[in-house]
Amino acid sequence: MTTSGSPPHGPVNAAPPSTRLLTQAALREAVGHLDASLERMFGYHMGWWGERGDPCPEAAEGKALRPALAFLGADAAGVPTDTAEPGAVAVELIHNSTLIHDDMMDGDTVRRNRPAVWQVFGAGPAILLGDGLHACAVDTLLRRGGRHAPDAVRLLSGMLMRLARGQARDLALARRPWRGPKTVAIAEYRAMAADKTASLLGCAAAIGAQLGGASPTTLRTLVQAGEHLGLAFQFVDDLLGVWGPPRATGKESSSDLTRGQKTLPLLTAVGSGTDDGTRLAELLERGLPDRDAMTSAAELADRAGARAATERAARHHLALAQRAFASLGPPSEARDAFDELSTAVIGRTALAADPPRWPEDGAR
Amino acid sequence: MTTSGSPPHGPVNAAPPSTRLLTQAALREAVGHLDASLERMFGYHMGWWGERGDPCPEAAEGKALRPALAFLGADAAGVPTDTAEPGAVAVELIHNSTLIHDDMMDGDTVRRNRPAVWQVFGAGPAILLGDGLHACAVDTLLRRGGRHAPDAVRLLSGMLMRLARGQARDLALARRPWRGPKTVAIAEYRAMAADKTASLLGCAAAIGAQLGGASPTTLRTLVQAGEHLGLAFQFVDDLLGVWGPPRATGKESSSDLTRGQKTLPLLTAVGSGTDDGTRLAELLERGLPDRDAMTSAAELADRAGARAATERAARHHLALAQRAFASLGPPSEARDAFDELSTAVIGRTALAADPPRWPEDGAR
Repeated sequence: MTTSGSPPHGPVNAAPPSTRLLTQAALREAVGHLDASLERMFGYHMGWWGERGDPCPEAAEGKALRPALAFLGADAAGVPTDTAEPGAVAVELIHNSTLIHDDMMDGDTVRRNRPAVWQVFGAGPAILLGDGLHACAVDTLLRRGGRHAPDAVRLLSGMLMRLARGQARDLALARRPWRGPKTVAIAEYRAMAADKTASLLGCAAAIGAQLGGASPTTLRTLVQAGEHLGLAFQFVDDLLGVWGPPRATGKESSSDLTRGQKTLPLLTAVGSGTDDGTRLAELLERGLPDRDAMTSAAELADRAGARAATERAARHHLALAQRAFASLGPPSEARDAFDELSTAVIGRTALAADPPRWPEDGAR
Repeated sequence: MTTSGSPPHGPVNAAPPSTRLLTQAALREAVGHLDASLERMFGYHMGWWGERGDPCPEAAEGKALRPALAFLGADAAGVPTDTAEPGAVAVELIHNSTLIHDDMMDGDTVRRNRPAVWQVFGAGPAILLGDGLHACAVDTLLRRGGRHAPDAVRLLSGMLMRLARGQARDLALARRPWRGPKTVAIAEYRAMAADKTASLLGCAAAIGAQLGGASPTTLRTLVQAGEHLGLAFQFVDDLLGVWGPPRATGKESSSDLTRGQKTLPLLTAVGSGTDDGTRLAELLERGLPDRDAMTSAAELADRAGARAATERAARHHLALAQRAFASLGPPSEARDAFDELSTAVIGRTALAADPPRWPEDGAR
């Protein structure tokens, strides 16, 4: 069967060192305008410190993908790194604000292999920290972003409204039936994923260039590149939700399968018109009580062609992202770095090899 | 004893009709850019509809104090109502965003005499709604606020950072001891209240004028007027937390007394150097197991002079608020309305009469 195989062989999705330009100091400067207790919670969440602010060298830091995109987009648009930095800070703050709130919304107790912030510090402080980071992101842009800062804030706030809409629809889609006239169309799912996941990467790719006053055409292209990468990202996350390490490591409770999540591979399988798809739908409608049922569901989805189709969709959007970025100019270091980063992030190795080498953590 | 007496004789804190200029349509326009399910939750929270979007005429709407302040401040600065409106919308959205999150943080299950949003729709959707309203507020200013919108966003985001800091400190103060070198100084409490409560009213009073390009001096004065009103507001809330209807109506669980909240009257009583203050501290240190203990605590605080002192502090800041507003120009309708609104909000009747006629709900 395809869902077993080796454990992950180490992270394949780390950002290349050259793109990790955002310093801890820059983030701390931004969050330092909040309260010391919130700053300490943020440092714990980021993997810098233990829960008491103590050094914590073994903790895994996040990938800093979004700041890296902000710097690469700025570079491609000829905007200096210094000009782009407040944008990189803002998207990283917003991303972590949403992670902290998402973990609570989803009941996820673990983040980056440690107890999630709300588990350690309580639900109230975690809600507050997410809200504070949101305000910090806007404040950082207006305080340090220069004369194009208002445009960058508008980019950010428009994205955040799409993100909220996407999350609300995601909750609504999970309640819809697997079959019949009220089921979820693939197009609806893609629109939700574009709002929920891709919008933030599109904003990240453009915000540094926006602060440098890049042309509307350049900004649109950067948004497109980021959004295509975001869709590829989401589809890889969807693959992980069915065939990824959460099952291999026994974390069934967080699996898309047990949560009734409507994801691309499951919708594709159920809608395939195959016997395997029909049997999968019956299984999903009944609910998946144990690991055997989940293994059966994953096998049925694979045989219905959904795994291959989802991998194709991820590769397709990766290619569109790289093509959009390349259209900005001649071959350059930024372009090479974007190709490397985007390929690593969605785990091309994983998509090409069998057994797969999945990224170590989820795509978000 | 002073804590019994008649039940409240009806709301004394409703905004005068002339200041309720913010229409449901304007708020719905702003929130309409989110998802339909979030809009429905918002309408429930605002008291417009039942939980399924059904008409709900008996529900109490909020006081719309902050939008009223935005319009009055604009009026005093000679800024047209239309120009101020996006600011009124933004502060009302932010206020409700914080209410929705606060109810979850505090475990409060009732809001405006109905089950709180998170009780009806779940914690996840409530977190999401709060986040969405925050983004909507910024978006509304940038989309509809005209050329001074970036300054208004900066006012808003700076205030939100103070608010987060104030809330974090409020949580921290509750954990500090009642006596000894680590206890809470009155000045610390006031600084926390200025951040947590007064900052939003200061922002509300200035934001409409800010959108009209009012002078820095005018804006500073409006911020001061709003912040003094906010402090008065908080101190009335503190009075209610010890002697108000929550005890009369048996809602002990939400009382400041049982939550160990450090509030102005309790800190004043404990720090008074009187025997009653010492006995109150002993009671508070042991915790208040039942209603009798709470009644004793309230009586001790009263005898230690804390009730009268807190009432004086509230009146003092009310007077400073009205004086600041009056300094903006000659007697005017806006000035009369500000006096009427601010007096009603902190319940002058309540402060003058005995037994007290408290506002029907909390000051927030």
